[in-house]
Amino acid sequence: MRMYDIIMKKRNGGELSKEELRFFIENYTKGEIPDYQVSALMMAIYFQKMSEAETFELTMAMAESGEMLDLSGIQGIKVDKHSTGGVGDKTSLALTPMVAACGLPVAKMSGRGLGHTGGTIDKLESFPRFSTSLTTEQFMENVNRIGIAIMGQTADLAPADKKLYALRDVTATVDNLSLIASSIMSKKLASGADAIVLDVKTGSGAFMKKEEDAFALAEEMVKIGRSAGRTMSALVTDMDQPLGNAVGNSLEVLEAINTLQGKGPADFTELVYALGSEMLVAGKKANTLAEAKGMLEEVIGNGNALEKLAEFVAAQGGDRNAVYDTSLLPKAKESEEIPAPQEGYVSKIVCDEIGSCCLMLGGGRETKESVIDLSVGIILHKKVGDCVKAGESLATMYYNDQAKADAAMERFLKAYSFSSQEPPKTAFIKGKV
Amino acid sequence: MRMYDIIMKKRNGGELSKEELRFFIENYTKGEIPDYQVSALMMAIYFQKMSEAETFELTMAMAESGEMLDLSGIQGIKVDKHSTGGVGDKTSLALTPMVAACGLPVAKMSGRGLGHTGGTIDKLESFPRFSTSLTTEQFMENVNRIGIAIMGQTADLAPADKKLYALRDVTATVDNLSLIASSIMSKKLASGADAIVLDVKTGSGAFMKKEEDAFALAEEMVKIGRSAGRTMSALVTDMDQPLGNAVGNSLEVLEAINTLQGKGPADFTELVYALGSEMLVAGKKANTLAEAKGMLEEVIGNGNALEKLAEFVAAQGGDRNAVYDTSLLPKAKESEEIPAPQEGYVSKIVCDEIGSCCLMLGGGRETKESVIDLSVGIILHKKVGDCVKAGESLATMYYNDQAKADAAMERFLKAYSFSSQEPPKTAFIKGKV
Repeated sequence: MRMYDIIMKKRNGGELSKEELRFFIENYTKGEIPDYQVSALMMAIYFQKMSEAETFELTMAMAESGEMLDLSGIQGIKVDKHSTGGVGDKTSLALTPMVAACGLPVAKMSGRGLGHTGGTIDKLESFPRFSTSLTTEQFMENVNRIGIAIMGQTADLAPADKKLYALRDVTATVDNLSLIASSIMSKKLASGADAIVLDVKTGSGAFMKKEEDAFALAEEMVKIGRSAGRTMSALVTDMDQPLGNAVGNSLEVLEAINTLQGKGPADFTELVYALGSEMLVAGKKANTLAEAKGMLEEVIGNGNALEKLAEFVAAQGGDRNAVYDTSLLPKAKESEEIPAPQEGYVSKIVCDEIGSCCLMLGGGRETKESVIDLSVGIILHKKVGDCVKAGESLATMYYNDQAKADAAMERFLKAYSFSSQEPPKTAFIKGKV
Repeated sequence: MRMYDIIMKKRNGGELSKEELRFFIENYTKGEIPDYQVSALMMAIYFQKMSEAETFELTMAMAESGEMLDLSGIQGIKVDKHSTGGVGDKTSLALTPMVAACGLPVAKMSGRGLGHTGGTIDKLESFPRFSTSLTTEQFMENVNRIGIAIMGQTADLAPADKKLYALRDVTATVDNLSLIASSIMSKKLASGADAIVLDVKTGSGAFMKKEEDAFALAEEMVKIGRSAGRTMSALVTDMDQPLGNAVGNSLEVLEAINTLQGKGPADFTELVYALGSEMLVAGKKANTLAEAKGMLEEVIGNGNALEKLAEFVAAQGGDRNAVYDTSLLPKAKESEEIPAPQEGYVSKIVCDEIGSCCLMLGGGRETKESVIDLSVGIILHKKVGDCVKAGESLATMYYNDQAKADAAMERFLKAYSFSSQEPPKTAFIKGKV
């Protein structure tokens, strides 16, 4: 078998066989197929697309290119959740203790942030001394003991995807549905969960700007997971403006804690209930979504979800007191209100730009080597559809460097649009696949 | 300017500017743009194609990526000839002395063979001690003194094309009309001729299997050349079976000598007269093709063309006596007739396969490092349309190794098809652009 023939076949519109896809992935992972042949294949795939069967086989080959995590040492059905990412997305922070408090084991691998989007691990590090550097044994043990553990992705998790994604990123071959779906799903399948609940974002802050594309991606991923024998469901949710009000690591932790106390923002609360309900049903802890929602309301109401967060933080070396005394979380030295430049309804917030403001304040990574300032960020007071008077605060900016804050503020204001008419209301949850 | 944006623009169907194409070619030649981005761009070009303007600018950027040969030290109009290659193509061997004998200066760069196609330089080395390793000064001086010189392509001739072609060759991105045209024309433009006559082959032994594709390529190249201010013409000619009867280095030299004595095969003779006439008109040595043809007939008839070959061979260190006493050319130890397996008309000869037979005998290069046996090859006695009796000789094979000859013979017979009906006659010269 020759990589040349594989490129030629796909270029000419042929369907690659399981053997051909395995040959490509295995030898690329080993470094025996050069990048320049793979980028040509990726561009051919961009134009010729991949069939359902090809997408599934590519995903499986990538999932099996490294270690396949074996979660059988954990009792019960293991349910994973994956979000396609966005600005202000602190879902895992609130969601995982909620479902763990309902008895569903949470064994989750998470990542760090890059560019204008944050990462769960960075956010969790707002808890003093908290660490996600667990061995697989510690990870399993924690899940069995307290019902929840989160660790960083091991280097050997779907290494083919890591290599392929880095190549696609510099060769303009990222935005193909099959390649996006196989990239996400290869990691999820390798992470070993029995069931996977997907949160596919759509809107200006999402990779899938158009709702129809988000649904198509959700369907593609659900199909792959089912073909691999996993229980699957996916929600398509709004990322046309930041999720919740907080953008910035410790500020998002604070918002998650508020949500676990029943005081979270409406959109974020709606999302964690919806995803949590899907997870509890998938994990057979509830028979219906309504029953699951009731269980989640109970663990919020009785404080069990919040206490589960504290237990989890403590089990991974962090200061559990910070859950109950949030003044122990990293705090920026300065804060400033951002006044509305005019009266009217907020008609649009360019989501990525708010993420970029946080990045400018030092709250994100420009490159993989950047050090993050966990304390900085923005709390939005006005979101799309809200009415505002000129001079009224749109948001509070938390910062440690005045020059950075000035630049971020200028950028922030450009992200907001106003109109004299109330914009049409749109659903936060667009639908389910 | 970023290579990523250039790939993305082409992928999305945009037209690349002169500046973008120059940026890509210049930085790729310098090694500052990696192969994996370039192969992605090549695949995007395969799908999105290039406009006439893009093709021209790419060609110019590649031509100017290395040394542009300055032929102004040679008096008169410099006319170059280029063939897209095939099996048994010894055109330059006969054509260049013919036009030189008519007073047209010939300053030609040629290449070596690879795979099933031969190269002019290898063939010329059949003359004992002949060398194409000339300095540019010697090259110019020879042209001015005796009217003809052939040298190997300098390493610095269109280095971008060399690098790009090698990459396209392993990434299934060779067969795009614009890329093929720009590859050929970049070298031709860098070689410095004022006028270029192209011989674009079509048929089973040609890169362009279909006549319409050959015409399209011819038109593309003619346009590029004219945009670069050169006088251009192109003939589309048959390569559905080997050209002439001889395939193999010294055997082809012998056939060229026969042709210069007016005893050449009909198809090959027709070709050299047609291309020679185009060259003489382009070089303003004749006003019409008919006049040019008369001049060529004269130098064949009076022996001037043959003597010009002898002069040329001697000027480059070779043995001029071999032109008049061909027993001095390399000769294989053994020969064997290949009998026709059946009676009938030869209906088809798979051209590439005959080239491959010669390669198997040792007459070609498997890799760039292979050493060629100049003496081996095949003389065809029956070509398409000829009637043959069972057992009559189809060809004579010249060889030095019995095992290789046996394998080549088996392959040879598979390349021939027979039919009971006379196949329709087709024109050897398909047309002119």
